[in-house]
Amino acid sequence: MSRLLSTTLQALRPYVPGEQPREPIRLKLNTNENPYGPSPKVLAAIQQATSEDLRLYPDPTAMKLRQSIAAYYELSPDQVFVGNGSDEVLGHLFQALFQRPGVVLLPDISYSFYDTYSALYDVTPHHIPLDDHLAIQADDYCHYDASPVAGIIFANPNAPTGLSLTLDDIARIARAHPDAAVVVDEAYVDFGADSAVALLGDYDNIVVVQTLSKSRALAGLRVGFALASPLIVEALTRVKDSFNSYPLDQLALVAAQAAMEDTAYFEEICRRIISDRNELSRQLAALGFTVLSSDTNFLFCRPPNGQAQALAQRLRQHGILVRHFNHARIQSYLRITVGTSQGCKALCNALQQILSSELS
Amino acid sequence: MSRLLSTTLQALRPYVPGEQPREPIRLKLNTNENPYGPSPKVLAAIQQATSEDLRLYPDPTAMKLRQSIAAYYELSPDQVFVGNGSDEVLGHLFQALFQRPGVVLLPDISYSFYDTYSALYDVTPHHIPLDDHLAIQADDYCHYDASPVAGIIFANPNAPTGLSLTLDDIARIARAHPDAAVVVDEAYVDFGADSAVALLGDYDNIVVVQTLSKSRALAGLRVGFALASPLIVEALTRVKDSFNSYPLDQLALVAAQAAMEDTAYFEEICRRIISDRNELSRQLAALGFTVLSSDTNFLFCRPPNGQAQALAQRLRQHGILVRHFNHARIQSYLRITVGTSQGCKALCNALQQILSSELS
Repeated sequence: MSRLLSTTLQALRPYVPGEQPREPIRLKLNTNENPYGPSPKVLAAIQQATSEDLRLYPDPTAMKLRQSIAAYYELSPDQVFVGNGSDEVLGHLFQALFQRPGVVLLPDISYSFYDTYSALYDVTPHHIPLDDHLAIQADDYCHYDASPVAGIIFANPNAPTGLSLTLDDIARIARAHPDAAVVVDEAYVDFGADSAVALLGDYDNIVVVQTLSKSRALAGLRVGFALASPLIVEALTRVKDSFNSYPLDQLALVAAQAAMEDTAYFEEICRRIISDRNELSRQLAALGFTVLSSDTNFLFCRPPNGQAQALAQRLRQHGILVRHFNHARIQSYLRITVGTSQGCKALCNALQQILSSELS
Repeated sequence: MSRLLSTTLQALRPYVPGEQPREPIRLKLNTNENPYGPSPKVLAAIQQATSEDLRLYPDPTAMKLRQSIAAYYELSPDQVFVGNGSDEVLGHLFQALFQRPGVVLLPDISYSFYDTYSALYDVTPHHIPLDDHLAIQADDYCHYDASPVAGIIFANPNAPTGLSLTLDDIARIARAHPDAAVVVDEAYVDFGADSAVALLGDYDNIVVVQTLSKSRALAGLRVGFALASPLIVEALTRVKDSFNSYPLDQLALVAAQAAMEDTAYFEEICRRIISDRNELSRQLAALGFTVLSSDTNFLFCRPPNGQAQALAQRLRQHGILVRHFNHARIQSYLRITVGTSQGCKALCNALQQILSSELS
């Protein structure tokens, strides 16, 4: 370690995001972006920004955006916290809720940034294995009592599996650990799972995290939010105000507000993606893939011969990017983003070509 | 403390940003925003953003923006780190460089976020008093040896005083503490001080931090950067990748790049602000104020009777916001942002009216 660097630096385990390729790619199905782009009202809101909007600091409380999100979920703005992408929101949650004695329960296979945050905030993770079908078993969380529980976090639907827990499962976990926050990361919830927002009234220890990057098609703008009790929102605000007064810029604020308010467009693109996902799932099964049931905008699937990494490389030669994870339990799987209908067809054509050439 | 919150939460000391008023204000001179707005090329770059730009994740390495910044300063992109405002960059610097045994030296009066970060990252600050003229004395830093020094941070020009150190002073401090990073926060440097960028080649422990919020008139977009050795940039990147893969959104990236590349516009608005500042300084002196020499886009000044807080309230009744700090050594001072020429005149008229009514 250099003489100039902090002692904590070595302990960090940086997250590795999905590749953003520099060469031209025909089909980018590796980072679960929305194929349709945001509501036209988002672009209109951005176009209206003036020089005056840019020279002045944005509202550090992001009140108008929080009001829009609150209105959509029939909550109060003091139950809404916004951040620079749901990653920043998750980071602040680790610091506001999990940085205390005890372990944080999380699935062995989930969004890998949770492990990154554990290292960053010196939180002790305790990984609970998914079951043999790669599903989260709520009972494993309810019955955990080996150490004090500082918190619980999982994605619902889970990533990269795409499988969901029911609200009953989540409520049971929250009841089993009433003195620990249960963070439900709902990045993909709009594509088919039930949001735990419905539980906030009954469980003050549940925190819902969402993003505008997937279902609202705004990955380029970095806006995420947490929905929770006013007490937890206040704690998050305390962390945020100790780190960055203005995490959301003026354009992200107005664009995100427009996206939240155009419900019709949002529902239409979700409906299309769900329909295309279900069709793609059938097609992949017909090609011999094992496809997990998905409540997301991606499919987690095992190619016929289980050679997932090799297949990802072959797909890349066809100009198609998908995501492979180097984790023992899931290394025979690929995570494939659901693109447009046309994109799904192009993917299936390429797969057919690759698989038949392997057999011949 | 609630049963759900982390033990570290209580120790935080959130920063209080300058007020962003909700009622109409005639002259907002409290947060050092640029009166002129960004380069027209910035708005043009934003207008060109497409739906495609918004639905895809931005480049997590921000390479094009870093290339522009590097080109401006004749550095290499691996000497440039960018973040969501210079506040985020400063936060990462505390974690990457200062989180280790020893104290961090900083002025007793400076940007108060440094104390906020000390609490957030559990760093021990050691405050060195400004001299009787409210200036930083480099010797006080060079000769400090009571504890091991983990790092040094100060603003140059300092805020809210507006006074600068010379590059010789900064080099002496860097030489006196070769095993500690010396972070020079140059938020206001473009309005008249010399940048320590010139020292980077000779001192691998100097880190320069700048923002696009002031001289580039982009407070609404939240872009800041650090210039340092590749080793320090890599350390910052490690922290960033453990916290948020994509801190800068697509619009901030293209807008900031356009701002960095329009040198002619940038130089012109800086020139105007410097000229108006010098004129305003003379006017305030003529009204009986004690005005500190300023290398920034604000003036730090003491009204004739020293009743700064009362004067700020009177100015507010005239629709003019300025900033007062509740700190014993400077409570008789106001920090006043330099607005347009017209704004400066309106301010002086209001002051004249207030002061003459007090005398009558």
